[in-house]
Amino acid sequence: MKRWESVTIIGVGLIGASIGLALRERRLAKNVVGVGRRASSLRKAKACGAVTATTTNLERGVSDAELIVVCTPVELIVQRAVEAAALAGPGTLITDAGSTKAEIVRTLDRSLQGNQDVDFVGSHPMAGSEKTGPTHARADLFEGRVSVVTPTTRTSNSARDAIEEFWRSLGANVVRLSPRQHDRTVAMISHLPHVISSAVAASTPDADLPLASTGWLDTTRIAAGDPELWRQILSDNRADVLKSLGKFEKVLASFRRALERDDQRKLIQLLEAGKQRREALGN
Amino acid sequence: MKRWESVTIIGVGLIGASIGLALRERRLAKNVVGVGRRASSLRKAKACGAVTATTTNLERGVSDAELIVVCTPVELIVQRAVEAAALAGPGTLITDAGSTKAEIVRTLDRSLQGNQDVDFVGSHPMAGSEKTGPTHARADLFEGRVSVVTPTTRTSNSARDAIEEFWRSLGANVVRLSPRQHDRTVAMISHLPHVISSAVAASTPDADLPLASTGWLDTTRIAAGDPELWRQILSDNRADVLKSLGKFEKVLASFRRALERDDQRKLIQLLEAGKQRREALGN
Repeated sequence: MKRWESVTIIGVGLIGASIGLALRERRLAKNVVGVGRRASSLRKAKACGAVTATTTNLERGVSDAELIVVCTPVELIVQRAVEAAALAGPGTLITDAGSTKAEIVRTLDRSLQGNQDVDFVGSHPMAGSEKTGPTHARADLFEGRVSVVTPTTRTSNSARDAIEEFWRSLGANVVRLSPRQHDRTVAMISHLPHVISSAVAASTPDADLPLASTGWLDTTRIAAGDPELWRQILSDNRADVLKSLGKFEKVLASFRRALERDDQRKLIQLLEAGKQRREALGN
Repeated sequence: MKRWESVTIIGVGLIGASIGLALRERRLAKNVVGVGRRASSLRKAKACGAVTATTTNLERGVSDAELIVVCTPVELIVQRAVEAAALAGPGTLITDAGSTKAEIVRTLDRSLQGNQDVDFVGSHPMAGSEKTGPTHARADLFEGRVSVVTPTTRTSNSARDAIEEFWRSLGANVVRLSPRQHDRTVAMISHLPHVISSAVAASTPDADLPLASTGWLDTTRIAAGDPELWRQILSDNRADVLKSLGKFEKVLASFRRALERDDQRKLIQLLEAGKQRREALGN
Protein backbone atom coordinates (compact mmCIF):
# COMPACT_ATOMS: atom_id res chain seq x y z
CA MET A 1 0.00 0.00 0.00
CA LYS A 2 1.35 3.40 -0.94
CA ARG A 3 2.39 5.59 1.99
CA TRP A 4 1.98 9.29 1.19
CA GLU A 5 4.42 11.85 2.46
CA SER A 6 1.79 14.59 2.43
CA VAL A 7 -1.93 14.66 1.63
CA THR A 8 -3.95 17.88 1.65
CA ILE A 9 -7.66 17.85 2.35
CA ILE A 10 -9.60 20.93 1.28
CA GLY A 11 -12.79 21.11 3.33
CA VAL A 12 -12.77 19.23 6.63
CA GLY A 13 -16.45 18.32 6.99
CA LEU A 14 -17.64 14.78 7.67
CA ILE A 15 -16.09 13.31 4.51
CA GLY A 16 -12.82 15.27 4.57
CA ALA A 17 -12.18 14.61 8.25
CA SER A 18 -13.07 10.93 7.85
CA ILE A 19 -10.52 10.62 5.02
CA GLY A 20 -7.92 12.22 7.30
CA LEU A 21 -8.78 9.91 10.19
CA ALA A 22 -8.63 6.83 7.98
CA LEU A 23 -5.25 7.89 6.52
CA ARG A 24 -3.86 8.47 9.99
CA GLU A 25 -5.23 5.31 11.61
CA ARG A 26 -4.09 3.13 8.74
CA ARG A 27 -0.70 4.87 8.71
CA LEU A 28 -1.08 5.71 5.03
CA ALA A 29 0.09 9.33 5.28
CA LYS A 30 2.80 11.03 7.30
CA ASN A 31 1.33 14.51 6.99
CA VAL A 32 -2.33 15.31 6.51
CA VAL A 33 -2.93 19.02 6.01
CA GLY A 34 -6.45 20.35 6.48
CA VAL A 35 -7.35 23.48 4.51
CA GLY A 36 -10.55 25.33 5.30
CA ARG A 37 -12.07 28.73 5.56
CA ARG A 38 -13.37 28.46 9.09
CA ALA A 39 -10.81 28.21 11.87
CA SER A 40 -13.39 26.50 14.13
CA SER A 41 -13.82 23.51 11.77
CA LEU A 42 -10.07 23.23 11.35
CA ARG A 43 -9.60 23.22 15.12
CA LYS A 44 -12.17 20.44 15.50
CA ALA A 45 -10.56 18.38 12.74
CA LYS A 46 -7.17 18.73 14.42
CA ALA A 47 -8.60 17.93 17.86
CA CYS A 48 -10.10 14.65 16.66
CA GLY A 49 -6.85 13.61 15.00
CA ALA A 50 -8.08 13.86 11.40
CA VAL A 51 -5.26 16.16 10.32
CA THR A 52 -1.71 16.83 11.49
CA ALA A 53 -1.65 20.48 10.43
CA THR A 54 -4.21 23.10 9.42
CA THR A 55 -4.26 26.36 7.52
CA THR A 56 -6.73 28.80 6.01
CA ASN A 57 -4.09 29.72 3.42
CA LEU A 58 -4.55 27.57 0.33
CA GLU A 59 -1.05 28.24 -1.06
CA ARG A 60 0.63 27.12 2.15
CA GLY A 61 -1.79 24.18 2.39
CA VAL A 62 -1.02 22.65 -0.99
CA SER A 63 2.67 23.52 -1.48
CA ASP A 64 3.99 20.14 -0.31
CA ALA A 65 1.02 17.98 -1.28
CA GLU A 66 1.45 14.82 -3.36
CA LEU A 67 -2.30 14.33 -3.28
CA ILE A 68 -5.06 16.91 -2.85
CA VAL A 69 -8.63 15.79 -2.04
CA VAL A 70 -11.28 18.48 -2.51
CA CYS A 71 -14.09 17.74 -0.03
CA THR A 72 -16.05 20.99 -0.14
CA PRO A 73 -19.76 21.24 -0.94
CA VAL A 74 -20.48 20.53 -4.62
CA GLU A 75 -20.76 24.15 -5.75
CA LEU A 76 -17.25 25.03 -4.53
CA ILE A 77 -15.34 22.02 -5.87
CA VAL A 78 -14.42 23.40 -9.30
CA GLN A 79 -13.22 26.73 -7.97
CA ARG A 80 -11.15 25.22 -5.16
CA ALA A 81 -9.65 22.55 -7.43
CA VAL A 82 -8.62 25.16 -10.03
CA GLU A 83 -7.05 27.38 -7.37
CA ALA A 84 -5.26 24.42 -5.79
CA ALA A 85 -3.95 23.22 -9.18
CA ALA A 86 -2.46 26.64 -9.88
CA LEU A 87 -0.60 26.63 -6.56
CA ALA A 88 0.40 22.96 -6.36
CA GLY A 89 3.85 21.63 -7.19
CA PRO A 90 4.60 19.50 -10.30
CA GLY A 91 3.24 15.96 -10.27
CA THR A 92 0.45 16.66 -7.79
CA LEU A 93 -2.60 14.44 -8.03
CA ILE A 94 -6.02 15.98 -7.42
CA THR A 95 -9.33 14.28 -6.75
CA ASP A 96 -12.62 15.31 -5.16
CA ALA A 97 -15.44 13.75 -3.15
CA GLY A 98 -18.43 15.42 -4.79
CA SER A 99 -21.85 13.73 -5.02
CA THR A 100 -22.22 14.78 -8.67
CA LYS A 101 -19.63 14.29 -11.38
CA ALA A 102 -20.60 15.22 -14.98
CA GLU A 103 -20.47 19.00 -14.65
CA ILE A 104 -17.52 19.05 -12.23
CA VAL A 105 -15.36 16.70 -14.29
CA ARG A 106 -16.23 18.38 -17.59
CA THR A 107 -15.32 21.81 -16.26
CA LEU A 108 -12.13 20.67 -14.56
CA ASP A 109 -10.97 18.64 -17.57
CA ARG A 110 -11.29 21.85 -19.59
CA SER A 111 -9.83 24.22 -16.97
CA LEU A 112 -6.81 22.10 -16.13
CA GLN A 113 -6.02 21.21 -19.74
CA GLY A 114 -3.06 23.63 -20.00
CA ASN A 115 -1.61 22.47 -16.71
CA GLN A 116 0.73 19.59 -17.60
CA ASP A 117 1.91 19.21 -14.03
CA VAL A 118 -1.35 18.31 -12.36
CA ASP A 119 -3.59 15.26 -12.81
CA PHE A 120 -7.29 15.38 -11.88
CA VAL A 121 -9.55 12.34 -11.45
CA GLY A 122 -13.13 12.68 -10.19
CA SER A 123 -14.32 10.57 -7.24
CA HIS A 124 -17.45 10.04 -5.20
CA PRO A 125 -17.12 8.04 -1.99
CA MET A 126 -20.68 6.80 -1.38
CA ALA A 127 -20.52 7.02 2.35
CA GLY A 128 -21.93 9.60 4.63
CA SER A 129 -24.62 10.27 7.07
CA GLU A 130 -27.36 12.73 7.80
CA LYS A 131 -24.84 14.11 10.29
CA THR A 132 -22.30 16.66 9.17
CA GLY A 133 -19.07 18.22 10.40
CA PRO A 134 -15.69 16.84 11.51
CA THR A 135 -16.93 15.83 14.98
CA HIS A 136 -18.93 12.99 13.36
CA ALA A 137 -15.93 11.76 11.34
CA ARG A 138 -15.12 8.04 11.46
CA ALA A 139 -11.96 6.28 10.32
CA ASP A 140 -14.08 3.35 9.08
CA LEU A 141 -16.56 5.48 7.09
CA PHE A 142 -15.39 4.07 3.75
CA GLU A 143 -14.86 0.44 4.77
CA GLY A 144 -16.88 -1.91 2.60
CA ARG A 145 -18.60 1.04 0.91
CA VAL A 146 -18.49 1.96 -2.76
CA SER A 147 -16.25 4.75 -4.02
CA VAL A 148 -16.97 5.67 -7.60
CA VAL A 149 -14.03 6.89 -9.70
CA THR A 150 -14.86 8.67 -12.97
CA PRO A 151 -11.91 8.87 -15.38
CA THR A 152 -12.36 10.35 -18.86
CA THR A 153 -10.42 10.12 -22.12
CA ARG A 154 -8.24 12.91 -20.75
CA THR A 155 -7.29 11.00 -17.60
CA SER A 156 -3.90 9.27 -17.57
CA ASN A 157 -3.98 5.60 -16.59
CA SER A 158 -1.41 6.17 -13.87
CA ALA A 159 -3.48 8.93 -12.25
CA ARG A 160 -6.63 6.81 -12.48
CA ASP A 161 -4.88 3.80 -10.95
CA ALA A 162 -3.39 5.90 -8.15
CA ILE A 163 -6.78 7.36 -7.19
CA GLU A 164 -8.48 3.96 -7.33
CA GLU A 165 -5.71 2.57 -5.13
CA PHE A 166 -6.15 5.51 -2.76
CA TRP A 167 -9.83 4.69 -2.12
CA ARG A 168 -9.07 0.98 -1.83
CA SER A 169 -6.43 1.77 0.78
CA LEU A 170 -9.21 3.36 2.88
CA GLY A 171 -11.21 0.12 2.66
CA ALA A 172 -13.60 1.14 -0.12
CA ASN A 173 -14.81 -0.97 -3.04
CA VAL A 174 -13.97 0.98 -6.18
CA VAL A 175 -16.45 1.18 -9.04
CA ARG A 176 -15.29 2.86 -12.25
CA LEU A 177 -17.97 4.75 -14.20
CA SER A 178 -18.13 7.57 -16.73
CA PRO A 179 -19.18 10.87 -15.12
CA ARG A 180 -22.52 10.73 -17.01
CA GLN A 181 -23.23 7.15 -15.97
CA HIS A 182 -22.39 8.06 -12.39
CA ASP A 183 -24.84 10.95 -12.33
CA ARG A 184 -27.64 8.91 -13.89
CA THR A 185 -27.17 6.12 -11.35
CA VAL A 186 -26.91 8.25 -8.22
CA ALA A 187 -29.95 10.27 -9.32
CA MET A 188 -31.95 7.08 -8.86
CA ILE A 189 -30.20 5.42 -5.94
CA SER A 190 -29.30 8.44 -3.83
CA HIS A 191 -30.82 11.75 -4.94
CA LEU A 192 -34.37 10.47 -5.58
CA PRO A 193 -34.54 8.74 -2.15
CA HIS A 194 -33.52 12.04 -0.58
CA VAL A 195 -36.35 13.90 -2.30
CA ILE A 196 -38.86 11.18 -1.37
CA SER A 197 -37.69 10.95 2.23
CA SER A 198 -37.91 14.71 2.58
CA ALA A 199 -41.39 14.78 1.01
CA VAL A 200 -42.67 12.04 3.37
CA ALA A 201 -41.36 13.96 6.39
CA ALA A 202 -42.67 17.31 5.15
CA SER A 203 -46.15 15.96 4.39
CA THR A 204 -46.65 14.39 7.84
CA PRO A 205 -48.79 16.59 10.12
CA ASP A 206 -47.23 17.32 13.50
CA ALA A 207 -50.28 15.82 15.19
CA ASP A 208 -49.44 12.38 13.73
CA LEU A 209 -45.82 12.29 14.91
CA PRO A 210 -46.48 10.73 18.35
CA LEU A 211 -47.39 7.47 16.58
CA ALA A 212 -44.20 7.38 14.51
CA SER A 213 -42.62 3.94 14.62
CA THR A 214 -39.61 2.33 12.89
CA GLY A 215 -41.28 2.54 9.47
CA TRP A 216 -41.62 6.31 9.44
CA LEU A 217 -38.27 6.76 11.18
CA ASP A 218 -36.35 4.62 8.66
CA THR A 219 -38.10 6.09 5.64
CA THR A 220 -37.43 9.68 6.70
CA ARG A 221 -33.96 9.29 8.24
CA ILE A 222 -32.02 10.97 5.41
CA ALA A 223 -34.46 13.92 5.40
CA ALA A 224 -32.40 15.20 8.34
CA GLY A 225 -29.45 15.82 5.97
CA ASP A 226 -28.07 19.34 5.43
CA PRO A 227 -30.57 21.23 3.18
CA GLU A 228 -27.86 23.48 1.71
CA LEU A 229 -25.65 20.54 0.66
CA TRP A 230 -28.66 18.77 -0.84
CA ARG A 231 -29.93 21.86 -2.64
CA GLN A 232 -26.58 21.99 -4.44
CA ILE A 233 -26.62 18.29 -5.31
CA LEU A 234 -30.24 18.25 -6.54
CA SER A 235 -29.80 21.44 -8.53
CA ASP A 236 -26.57 20.24 -10.15
CA ASN A 237 -28.10 16.90 -11.13
CA ARG A 238 -31.68 18.03 -11.68
CA ALA A 239 -32.16 16.64 -15.19
CA ASP A 240 -31.30 13.11 -14.06
CA VAL A 241 -33.20 13.49 -10.78
CA LEU A 242 -36.31 14.51 -12.74
CA LYS A 243 -35.99 11.39 -14.91
CA SER A 244 -35.71 9.17 -11.83
CA LEU A 245 -38.64 10.99 -10.25
CA GLY A 246 -40.66 10.18 -13.37
CA LYS A 247 -39.98 6.45 -12.91
CA PHE A 248 -41.03 6.65 -9.26
CA GLU A 249 -44.21 8.61 -10.07
CA LYS A 250 -45.23 5.91 -12.53
CA VAL A 251 -45.02 3.17 -9.89
CA LEU A 252 -46.76 5.40 -7.35
CA ALA A 253 -49.58 6.05 -9.82
CA SER A 254 -50.04 2.26 -10.12
CA PHE A 255 -50.30 2.03 -6.33
CA ARG A 256 -52.89 4.84 -6.38
CA ARG A 257 -54.98 3.12 -9.04
CA ALA A 258 -54.78 -0.23 -7.23
CA LEU A 259 -55.98 1.43 -3.99
CA GLU A 260 -58.76 3.36 -5.73
CA ARG A 261 -60.08 0.20 -7.37
CA ASP A 262 -59.26 -2.00 -4.37
CA ASP A 263 -57.38 -4.17 -6.88
CA GLN A 264 -55.94 -6.82 -4.54
CA ARG A 265 -54.00 -8.63 -7.23
CA LYS A 266 -52.25 -5.46 -8.36
CA LEU A 267 -51.49 -4.44 -4.77
CA ILE A 268 -49.80 -7.75 -4.05
CA GLN A 269 -47.89 -7.52 -7.33
CA LEU A 270 -46.55 -4.04 -6.49
CA LEU A 271 -45.66 -4.99 -2.91
CA GLU A 272 -43.90 -8.14 -4.17
CA ALA A 273 -41.89 -6.12 -6.70
CA GLY A 274 -40.71 -3.75 -3.96
CA LYS A 275 -39.82 -6.61 -1.62
CA GLN A 276 -37.85 -8.45 -4.29
CA ARG A 277 -35.80 -5.40 -5.25
CA ARG A 278 -35.15 -4.56 -1.60
CA GLU A 279 -34.10 -8.08 -0.74
CA ALA A 280 -31.61 -8.17 -3.61
CA LEU A 281 -29.52 -6.25 -1.07
CA GLY A 282 -29.15 -6.99 2.65
CA ASN A 283 -29.82 -4.75 5.63
CA MET B 1 -48.70 -5.34 38.12
CA LYS B 2 -51.42 -7.87 37.43
CA ARG B 3 -50.24 -11.46 37.15
CA TRP B 4 -52.46 -13.49 34.82
CA GLU B 5 -53.27 -17.08 35.50
CA SER B 6 -53.76 -17.85 31.82
CA VAL B 7 -53.39 -15.79 28.64
CA THR B 8 -54.23 -17.18 25.22
CA ILE B 9 -52.55 -15.85 22.09
CA ILE B 10 -54.29 -16.60 18.80
CA GLY B 11 -51.72 -16.38 16.01
CA VAL B 12 -48.09 -16.84 17.04
CA GLY B 13 -46.30 -14.71 14.45
CA LEU B 14 -43.79 -12.02 15.33
CA ILE B 15 -46.23 -9.97 17.42
CA GLY B 16 -48.02 -12.88 19.11
CA ALA B 17 -44.81 -14.68 20.02
CA SER B 18 -43.23 -11.44 21.26
CA ILE B 19 -46.21 -10.86 23.57
CA GLY B 20 -45.77 -14.38 24.90
CA LEU B 21 -42.03 -13.92 25.42
CA ALA B 22 -42.55 -10.60 27.19
CA LEU B 23 -45.24 -12.10 29.48
CA ARG B 24 -42.98 -14.99 30.35
CA GLU B 25 -39.78 -13.01 30.89
CA ARG B 26 -41.56 -10.41 33.01
CA ARG B 27 -43.35 -13.16 34.96
CA LEU B 28 -46.72 -11.62 34.15
CA ALA B 29 -48.49 -14.86 33.22
CA LYS B 30 -48.34 -18.37 34.60
CA ASN B 31 -49.74 -20.03 31.49
CA VAL B 32 -49.45 -18.69 27.97
CA VAL B 33 -51.37 -20.80 25.46
CA GLY B 34 -50.55 -20.41 21.78
CA VAL B 35 -53.36 -21.17 19.34
CA GLY B 36 -52.62 -21.48 15.65
CA ARG B 37 -53.50 -23.35 12.52
CA ARG B 38 -50.03 -24.46 11.57
CA ALA B 39 -48.29 -26.93 13.87
CA SER B 40 -44.88 -25.76 12.62
CA SER B 41 -45.39 -22.17 13.86
CA LEU B 42 -46.70 -23.43 17.18
CA ARG B 43 -43.65 -25.67 17.59
CA LYS B 44 -41.32 -22.73 16.90
CA ALA B 45 -43.18 -20.51 19.37
CA LYS B 46 -42.92 -23.19 22.05
CA ALA B 47 -39.26 -23.82 21.28
CA CYS B 48 -38.33 -20.16 21.76
CA GLY B 49 -40.22 -20.01 25.07
CA ALA B 50 -42.99 -17.70 23.88
CA VAL B 51 -45.77 -20.04 25.03
CA THR B 52 -46.13 -22.72 27.69
CA ALA B 53 -48.68 -24.79 25.76
CA THR B 54 -49.97 -24.96 22.20
CA THR B 55 -53.03 -26.23 20.40
CA THR B 56 -54.69 -26.03 17.00
CA ASN B 57 -58.06 -26.50 18.74
CA LEU B 58 -59.57 -23.09 19.50
CA GLU B 59 -62.05 -24.41 22.07
CA ARG B 60 -59.33 -26.08 24.11
CA GLY B 61 -57.09 -23.03 23.62
CA VAL B 62 -59.48 -20.47 25.10
CA SER B 63 -61.36 -22.49 27.74
CA ASP B 64 -59.22 -21.30 30.68
CA ALA B 65 -58.20 -17.91 29.34
CA GLU B 66 -58.65 -14.76 31.39
CA LEU B 67 -57.27 -12.75 28.49
CA ILE B 68 -57.27 -13.56 24.77
CA VAL B 69 -55.05 -11.60 22.38
CA VAL B 70 -55.89 -12.07 18.68
CA CYS B 71 -52.65 -11.58 16.70
CA THR B 72 -53.64 -12.97 13.31
CA PRO B 73 -53.37 -11.04 10.03
CA VAL B 74 -55.94 -8.22 9.80
CA GLU B 75 -58.44 -10.08 7.61
CA LEU B 76 -58.83 -12.95 10.11
CA ILE B 77 -59.15 -10.93 13.32
CA VAL B 78 -62.94 -10.48 13.35
CA GLN B 79 -63.66 -14.12 12.60
CA ARG B 80 -61.21 -15.49 15.15
CA ALA B 81 -62.38 -13.06 17.84
CA VAL B 82 -66.04 -13.98 17.31
CA GLU B 83 -65.23 -17.69 17.45
CA ALA B 84 -63.10 -17.24 20.55
CA ALA B 85 -65.79 -15.16 22.30
CA ALA B 86 -68.36 -17.89 21.71
CA LEU B 87 -66.09 -20.49 23.29
CA ALA B 88 -64.57 -18.46 26.12
CA GLY B 89 -65.69 -18.58 29.73
CA PRO B 90 -67.53 -15.75 31.48
CA GLY B 91 -65.53 -12.61 32.25
CA THR B 92 -62.94 -13.24 29.55
CA LEU B 93 -61.25 -10.14 28.17
CA ILE B 94 -60.43 -10.02 24.45
CA THR B 95 -58.14 -7.67 22.57
CA ASP B 96 -56.31 -7.78 19.25
CA ALA B 97 -53.10 -6.47 17.72
CA GLY B 98 -54.36 -5.42 14.29
CA SER B 99 -52.80 -2.55 12.30
CA THR B 100 -56.25 -1.16 11.42
CA LYS B 101 -59.07 -0.54 13.85
CA ALA B 102 -62.22 1.18 12.52
CA GLU B 103 -63.70 -1.76 10.61
CA ILE B 104 -62.55 -4.42 13.09
CA VAL B 105 -63.85 -2.61 16.15
CA ARG B 106 -67.15 -1.64 14.52
CA THR B 107 -67.83 -5.23 13.44
CA LEU B 108 -66.81 -6.76 16.75
CA ASP B 109 -68.76 -4.24 18.82
CA ARG B 110 -71.83 -5.27 16.82
CA SER B 111 -71.12 -9.03 16.77
CA LEU B 112 -70.33 -9.34 20.46
CA GLN B 113 -73.19 -7.12 21.59
CA GLY B 114 -75.36 -9.98 22.81
CA ASN B 115 -72.51 -11.61 24.66
CA GLN B 116 -72.63 -10.15 28.17
CA ASP B 117 -69.79 -12.32 29.40
CA VAL B 118 -67.03 -11.12 27.13
CA ASP B 119 -65.36 -7.71 26.86
CA PHE B 120 -63.56 -6.62 23.69
CA VAL B 121 -61.17 -3.66 23.41
CA GLY B 122 -59.22 -2.97 20.20
CA SER B 123 -55.44 -2.51 20.36
CA HIS B 124 -52.57 -1.82 17.99
CA PRO B 125 -49.05 -2.27 19.35
CA MET B 126 -46.94 -0.11 17.02
CA ALA B 127 -43.94 -2.35 17.05
CA GLY B 128 -42.78 -4.76 14.48
CA SER B 129 -40.23 -5.32 11.85
CA GLU B 130 -39.93 -6.22 8.21
CA LYS B 131 -39.19 -9.69 9.60
CA THR B 132 -42.03 -12.05 10.37
CA GLY B 133 -42.61 -15.28 12.26
CA PRO B 134 -42.05 -16.45 15.85
CA THR B 135 -38.32 -17.01 15.36
CA HIS B 136 -37.82 -13.21 15.20
CA ALA B 137 -39.82 -12.61 18.39
CA ARG B 138 -38.28 -10.40 21.07
CA ALA B 139 -39.35 -9.95 24.68
CA ASP B 140 -38.46 -6.24 24.46
CA LEU B 141 -40.38 -5.57 21.24
CA PHE B 142 -42.91 -3.30 22.97
CA GLU B 143 -40.57 -1.49 25.36
CA GLY B 144 -40.74 2.24 24.90
CA ARG B 145 -43.02 1.82 21.87
CA VAL B 146 -46.54 3.10 21.46
CA SER B 147 -49.52 0.77 21.86
CA VAL B 148 -52.75 2.37 20.74
CA VAL B 149 -55.92 1.30 22.56
CA THR B 150 -59.24 2.18 20.89
CA PRO B 151 -62.22 2.01 23.29
CA THR B 152 -65.69 3.02 22.08
CA THR B 153 -68.91 4.07 23.81
CA ARG B 154 -69.65 0.37 24.17
CA THR B 155 -66.42 -0.41 26.02
CA SER B 156 -66.60 -0.72 29.81
CA ASN B 157 -64.08 1.40 31.69
CA SER B 158 -62.80 -1.62 33.58
CA ALA B 159 -62.06 -3.53 30.35
CA ARG B 160 -60.38 -0.48 28.83
CA ASP B 161 -58.24 0.04 31.93
CA ALA B 162 -57.26 -3.63 32.08
CA ILE B 163 -56.14 -3.65 28.45
CA GLU B 164 -54.21 -0.39 28.82
CA GLU B 165 -52.53 -1.82 31.92
CA PHE B 166 -51.73 -5.00 29.97
CA TRP B 167 -49.76 -3.10 27.30
CA ARG B 168 -48.06 -0.95 29.94
CA SER B 169 -46.98 -4.11 31.74
CA LEU B 170 -45.11 -5.11 28.56
CA GLY B 171 -43.25 -1.79 28.60
CA ALA B 172 -45.37 0.07 26.04
CA ASN B 173 -46.53 3.68 26.14
CA VAL B 174 -50.30 3.58 25.80
CA VAL B 175 -52.09 6.11 23.57
CA ARG B 176 -55.90 6.12 23.65
CA LEU B 177 -57.62 7.03 20.36
CA SER B 178 -60.97 6.46 18.71
CA PRO B 179 -60.81 3.71 16.05
CA ARG B 180 -61.35 6.34 13.29
CA GLN B 181 -58.66 8.65 14.62
CA HIS B 182 -56.30 5.69 14.86
CA ASP B 183 -56.85 4.70 11.24
CA ARG B 184 -56.41 8.26 9.95
CA THR B 185 -53.16 8.67 11.87
CA VAL B 186 -51.55 5.35 10.96
CA ALA B 187 -52.52 5.87 7.31
CA MET B 188 -50.10 8.82 7.32
CA ILE B 189 -47.41 7.63 9.72
CA SER B 190 -47.24 3.92 8.86
CA HIS B 191 -49.23 2.87 5.79
CA LEU B 192 -48.16 5.70 3.48
CA PRO B 193 -44.45 5.19 4.28
CA HIS B 194 -44.90 1.54 3.37
CA VAL B 195 -46.37 2.39 -0.02
CA ILE B 196 -43.64 4.98 -0.67
CA SER B 197 -40.83 2.69 0.44
CA SER B 198 -42.17 -0.08 -1.75
CA ALA B 199 -42.51 2.27 -4.74
CA VAL B 200 -38.92 3.53 -4.34
CA ALA B 201 -37.62 -0.04 -4.26
CA ALA B 202 -39.79 -1.18 -7.17
CA SER B 203 -38.80 1.76 -9.39
CA THR B 204 -35.06 1.26 -8.95
CA PRO B 205 -33.50 -0.55 -11.93
CA ASP B 206 -31.43 -3.60 -11.00
CA ALA B 207 -28.43 -2.06 -12.75
CA ASP B 208 -28.36 0.79 -10.21
CA LEU B 209 -28.37 -1.41 -7.10
CA PRO B 210 -24.59 -1.84 -6.82
CA LEU B 211 -24.34 1.84 -5.84
CA ALA B 212 -26.97 1.57 -3.09
CA SER B 213 -25.80 3.25 0.09
CA THR B 214 -27.39 3.98 3.48
CA GLY B 215 -29.88 6.43 1.96
CA TRP B 216 -31.51 3.89 -0.35
CA LEU B 217 -31.22 1.12 2.24
CA ASP B 218 -32.95 3.14 4.99
CA THR B 219 -35.64 4.51 2.72
CA THR B 220 -36.56 1.07 1.35
CA ARG B 221 -36.09 -1.05 4.51
CA ILE B 222 -39.80 -1.59 5.22
CA ALA B 223 -40.43 -2.58 1.60
CA ALA B 224 -39.13 -6.02 2.66
CA GLY B 225 -42.26 -6.53 4.79
CA ASP B 226 -44.71 -9.35 4.07
CA PRO B 227 -46.74 -8.36 0.95
CA GLU B 228 -49.77 -10.40 2.02
CA LEU B 229 -49.99 -8.75 5.45
CA TRP B 230 -49.56 -5.32 3.87
CA ARG B 231 -52.10 -5.97 1.13
CA GLN B 232 -54.67 -6.61 3.87
CA ILE B 233 -53.71 -3.50 5.83
CA LEU B 234 -53.69 -1.18 2.79
CA SER B 235 -56.93 -2.58 1.43
CA ASP B 236 -58.69 -2.32 4.80
CA ASN B 237 -57.57 1.29 5.30
CA ARG B 238 -57.50 2.39 1.67
CA ALA B 239 -59.71 5.50 2.01
CA ASP B 240 -57.39 7.01 4.62
CA VAL B 241 -54.26 5.83 2.81
CA LEU B 242 -55.46 7.57 -0.36
CA LYS B 243 -55.98 10.82 1.58
CA SER B 244 -52.45 10.60 3.01
CA LEU B 245 -51.10 9.78 -0.42
CA GLY B 246 -52.78 12.95 -1.70
CA LYS B 247 -50.90 15.05 0.88
CA PHE B 248 -47.61 13.43 -0.09
CA GLU B 249 -48.25 13.89 -3.83
CA LYS B 250 -48.81 17.61 -3.27
CA VAL B 251 -45.41 18.05 -1.60
CA LEU B 252 -43.77 15.87 -4.26
CA ALA B 253 -45.32 18.02 -6.99
CA SER B 254 -43.73 21.08 -5.34
CA PHE B 255 -40.36 19.32 -5.44
CA ARG B 256 -40.91 18.52 -9.12
CA ARG B 257 -41.77 22.13 -9.97
CA ALA B 258 -38.77 23.44 -8.00
CA LEU B 259 -36.45 21.06 -9.87
CA GLU B 260 -37.98 21.87 -13.27
CA ARG B 261 -37.55 25.60 -12.69
CA ASP B 262 -34.26 25.20 -10.81
CA ASP B 263 -35.94 27.23 -8.08
CA GLN B 264 -33.20 27.22 -5.43
CA ARG B 265 -35.22 29.08 -2.83
CA LYS B 266 -38.12 26.66 -3.06
CA LEU B 267 -35.78 23.64 -2.96
CA ILE B 268 -34.17 24.86 0.26
CA GLN B 269 -37.59 25.58 1.73
CA LEU B 270 -38.84 22.05 0.99
CA LEU B 271 -35.66 20.40 2.27
CA GLU B 272 -35.81 22.53 5.44
CA ALA B 273 -39.44 21.53 6.04
CA GLY B 274 -38.55 17.84 5.78
CA LYS B 275 -35.54 18.23 8.05
CA GLN B 276 -37.53 20.08 10.71
CA ARG B 277 -40.30 17.50 10.77
CA ARG B 278 -37.79 14.66 10.91
CA GLU B 279 -35.78 16.22 13.70
CA ALA B 280 -38.88 16.69 15.84
CA LEU B 281 -38.20 13.00 16.57
CA GLY B 282 -34.83 11.39 17.28
CA ASN B 283 -33.11 8.51 15.55
